Formats: sequence, C-alpha cells, structure tokens
Amino acid sequence: MSEISSSDRMRAIAIACLVEPGTAGIAELIAERGHEEVLGLCSARPRGAHVAGRIDSDDVPRMVAEMSRRGVRVVLPGETEYPGQLLDLPEPPLALWIKGPLDLRATALRSVAVVGARACTPYGERATAQLAGGLAGDGWAVVSGGAFGIDAAAHRAALGADGPTVAVLACGVDVAYPRAHDALLCRIADSGIVVSELPPGSQPLKHRFLARNRVIAALSRGTVVVEAARRSGAVATATRALEIGRVVMAVPGPITSMASAGTNRLLHEQVARAVTDSSEVVALLLGDEPVPQPHAGLPAEAVRVLESLPHSGARRVESVAQEVSIGEAACLAYLGLLEVSGLAGRRATGWRRTG
Amino acid sequence: MSEISSSDRMRAIAIACLVEPGTAGIAELIAERGHEEVLGLCSARPRGAHVAGRIDSDDVPRMVAEMSRRGVRVVLPGETEYPGQLLDLPEPPLALWIKGPLDLRATALRSVAVVGARACTPYGERATAQLAGGLAGDGWAVVSGGAFGIDAAAHRAALGADGPTVAVLACGVDVAYPRAHDALLCRIADSGIVVSELPPGSQPLKHRFLARNRVIAALSRGTVVVEAARRSGAVATATRALEIGRVVMAVPGPITSMASAGTNRLLHEQVARAVTDSSEVVALLLGDEPVPQPHAGLPAEAVRVLESLPHSGARRVESVAQEVSIGEAACLAYLGLLEVSGLAGRRATGWRRTG
Repeated sequence: MSEISSSDRMRAIAIACLVEPGTAGIAELIAERGHEEVLGLCSARPRGAHVAGRIDSDDVPRMVAEMSRRGVRVVLPGETEYPGQLLDLPEPPLALWIKGPLDLRATALRSVAVVGARACTPYGERATAQLAGGLAGDGWAVVSGGAFGIDAAAHRAALGADGPTVAVLACGVDVAYPRAHDALLCRIADSGIVVSELPPGSQPLKHRFLARNRVIAALSRGTVVVEAARRSGAVATATRALEIGRVVMAVPGPITSMASAGTNRLLHEQVARAVTDSSEVVALLLGDEPVPQPHAGLPAEAVRVLESLPHSGARRVESVAQEVSIGEAACLAYLGLLEVSGLAGRRATGWRRTG
Repeated sequence: MSEISSSDRMRAIAIACLVEPGTAGIAELIAERGHEEVLGLCSARPRGAHVAGRIDSDDVPRMVAEMSRRGVRVVLPGETEYPGQLLDLPEPPLALWIKGPLDLRATALRSVAVVGARACTPYGERATAQLAGGLAGDGWAVVSGGAFGIDAAAHRAALGADGPTVAVLACGVDVAYPRAHDALLCRIADSGIVVSELPPGSQPLKHRFLARNRVIAALSRGTVVVEAARRSGAVATATRALEIGRVVMAVPGPITSMASAGTNRLLHEQVARAVTDSSEVVALLLGDEPVPQPHAGLPAEAVRVLESLPHSGARRVESVAQEVSIGEAACLAYLGLLEVSGLAGRRATGWRRTG
C-alpha cells in the first residue's frame, strides 16, 4: 500500500467516476502517467457510452463529503478496506462506494456469492433459502446482486439467519434499484454492506450488470448459481468466477424446468460442481485451498503484522510497529483489520494472535 | 472362441445353474480343472446361501430342451451371442438365458442403461420418458431391470418409440416378477430381449438384485440414473459401471426431492455427468471412445472375418473361411453376427462390408 497525497486520492476517485466499470489498464496508465494527466485525459473524452461522465471532477471532494455524511465511504485499491482479491480481475474496480457497518475486506474473506434468475420458481426460492440460510448460519457472508428472484431470496435468507450479507449494485449505492427493493437494500446496509464501483447517482444501465457480475464473482471465494436460464447474467457470473479461479457451483434442478436449464448446463459441461446443501458448499470452498490460508487476501503489511504477534501473552503496538517498520497509526489500522478478520485479539497488555 | 463338446457345454450350463451369480474365478477354475471336476465340486457343495442349487445337474439337458421349446436359449461365454463386454466384469455371468427375437450381442453394442428408483415421482417418470424415448428413437437399445418406477418407464418409452429394449432380470426369465409386470415383460420379449444369468425358475432373492445390476452396467455402453435415493440399487449400478469404465450419467433433480438425493449426490461427487436430454447422452456415449470402434465387443474371429471382407464387390464364404482359418459354419455364424451388427451385408455373389 503506497500512500498517495489527498489531492491525488481525489483525482483517483474522479477518474473512477469518469471511467466506465470494466475498463482495463487504468491503474497501469496512472502508474505510468500520474493521476493528474490521466484525469485530464478522462475529462477530455466525449461523454459517450464508455464513460460514466455524470460527475464534474471539480465536484468530487464535495460529493465525497456529502456521501460521507450519508454514511457512504469510498475506498481505493491498496487501501485497507479494499479486498485484495478484486485485483484478480483484469479490470479491477477503480473505487468502491460502500455503505454499511461491516468491513468489506474482512467480510469478503469468508463470503460466497449466491446468484440466479430474476424470474425464479418457488423451487428456486426454496433452494436459495435453504442454502443461503445455512451458509449465513455457518458464518459465511452471502454476496448477491440485490435483484428480484434468487438474489433477493439469498439476501433475505442471510438477514433471517442474522448473518452478514453484501449487495453489489449495478448502480450507485444511493440509487434504489429495483425500486421495490428500497426497504431490502436499507436493511442490508443496516447490518451488512451495500457496495458499488459506480459513483453515487449512477443509473443501472444494461451493460453495467455484466460489469457488476465480475465484482460479485471476484469478491467471493465461490459462486453458487441456484436457478438460471440458458443465457443469463448468473451463468455469465459463473463463467467469470471460473476464469479467475473461484469455485463455481450450481444447484441441480428439474430437466423439465426452463429456470434450471442454465444451471443444469453448467453441470453438464462441468463448469460447475453440483451442490445440494450448505455443507457441500462450505466443503468445496474450504477444499479449494490445499493448505488453509486464513490470511489470504490480506495486504502484505497486515500479514507481517500478524506474523509478529505472539500466540500467547501479548505484544504492544509500538513494539509491533517497530518490528514491521511501519507507523503506529498504520499498525493499529492493520491490527483492527486482523481483529475483524478474527485473526488477532486485543488484550490488556497489547495484541496477540487468535486465528 | 474355443469350441467345447456338447457334454462339456451341458456341464458348463449345470455349473452356471449351481453357482450363485457374482461368484468370481469359476471360468479360471474350469480352465484349470476341467468342466467335469468343477461340476463335481459345485454339486457337492451344501445348498446354502451362495449356491442357486435349485437344479439337479442331471436335469439340465431336459431343462435346456424344455426352455428351447418355450423360446428361451442359453448362451455361454465365448459363444456368438454372448456379449464380450461382460468379460470386463471380474465375475462375468457363467451363462445367459435369453428370450426374444433380437441378438443380445448386436443389441448391446448400441445400448444404454436407464435405471432408477422403484418409488419414483411424476418428474422422474416424465424425465425417463423423454430420455429413453429419445434414445430409442435414435436407435439405441434401452437396457433396464424390469422393475416398477423408472425401469418400467424406460422400457415403456422404448417400446413406445418402436425401439429395442432389454430387461435384465434378477430371477429366471420364466418368472414373472414383479407379477404386475407380466404383460410388460411379455411385450419386451416379443420385440426385444429378456435376459437373466439365473437359471429358469430362480426366485428374485434380495442379493440377486445387486448381482443383476452389475450385468446391466457391463452390458451397456453407459448408464443413466434418473431418480434414486441416497442408498439404492441404481446408485450401486452407477458405481459398478464406473468401475468397469462405462460412461455414468445422472439426471439432475430438485434438491428438495428425496427421490433425487442419490442422483444429485452422484453429480456432486463427480461420479456421474449431468444429462438433460438424449442428445447429451449420445454425445457422451460416442465421445467415450477417442477413435470410433464400430466392432468394439465383437469376438476376435469376427473382427478378422470383417477385415477380410471387401468394401465393394463381394467375397464368397469359403474364401473368407479359408483366409481366417476357421470352419465354414463358424464363418457363417460370424457373418450373421456382423450382419445384425450392421457391419456386413449379403450379396448375390457373397459378402461385403457395410459399416
């Protein structure tokens, strides 16, 4: 994590507001040419199909402050809450707008996507409730897209099990879409996370759903498709998840049901593993890593902080910071991250490992 | 195929009547000690759980003659109608009792087993009708066990499509079991094949179903399980089919249905490939062999006869027999086998290839 100046940070947010999600190579361009020049390039581009283009870059500081008042934070790649696994994507989100009390990185470390058709059947709803409820009850965060059908059933099952749930939107986090899910999205933001790479105010344009699906796929350790038609967003999510090495799972359904045609095809083509309950999902998610890596996805500094902690007794922050050669404030931030990840614990005399 | 004397043939049939199906090593024992000694050993054994033991060996010629009058033939390993692929089993049937107008070996070359639960659901019946009907319509013989539920639906779908179907019984071919399937088994024997390794009169004892399942698995090029509970005969058939290198397929079903618990588990554990229609089944069956081997399963002599035939024109039987160094009667038998297999054709001046 290389710290950047606050003015470059505002430029980075402005660039993220101007570039359409799914555009590759921007981070490399910034590294080469610097924030100021890239922002100039983005601002000069015509406001066409490939540019969000709804925000004047001069307005960004005001928008960030306004959003902060409304409980929305923005995090950039390399910052503490930005999930490192998103960098598995060839086009990682340039910024994430986040609403909700949980830490996105810590939550995503133990998360699974449960996605599927908007036009689902009662069977699909029931299967989703069983699976997502079981996963949430087992402490897994349920990631989905906040849409009608399977997505909503997945979020609701997680909320019903008092488990964490993450809605990744294809519009701004302040845009209630679908409108009928206004209350559901508020509930998710109250106890879990609502997140989008699109700046506040962005509308859910058609191509943004596919771009959003790649974030769902990359954020979670695996994706379960419950019901999906042959050609569907959920099948596309599964394909993206496979491309970046995630576990892809599908729920078998009747061969006589069009709503299961996509899932059964994923199974037939061996893109997805068949799963029938949450314990099978968890076994596949954990089995995916030959050696358990509880700190997978943590930034390198956090891993070094973790490794400096004793398994018994405790070590003071100053001592840890000195060993890892970072400032005490940064050290405290990493310790906080390790704490929410369940890997470190605060004691009267300092910190120690708990993982 | 080494020809044996007619008295040794009767002894071989008697041994098959005395040894319980699924017993390994009998062929090797006969090769080592001869028919007479092995028959003596079998006859001397107490008539316990592992011996069919219902037939006095002296009665065998009379029983064979009586069965022949009733349209039942008996074939032994190495004989023309005995399907060579059964020898993939560690305990191949010692004899097959066959009723019906089709040649078992030729029929089995292009066959697929469709099996499943007795206690199936309307979904299972519908899925079976779709799959088995499609396979039969495409010229594939449908092999099953003649039982209630999925088996019956498979046979009926094949009959309905005017396709060949083979019922492999766990009792004698003259025993109507289940009794309610008397008419169905008669219809199968009228146009297809009813077959059993158990001698006529044998009752369907519990352990004989598992032994029968291995014959279903070995006879066909692949096995499709439509609906099956977690622990079931159909799942056992699939496991046996996998062990001997057959294609194993399962029809996905609702995870909320106990009748699909076994099939979904086969999919989850990657024992079976998911299939949703007959074209997917056929693709997997044909794809199983990297290079198409139209004469797979034929005895070596038949392949040599086939290879001696011209692609155009025709060759006389005497000439073929001389080249292959077999008798003319045997040569004619092999030509007949090749004819029913669709590989050779009779012309005015002799025989030629048609495959």
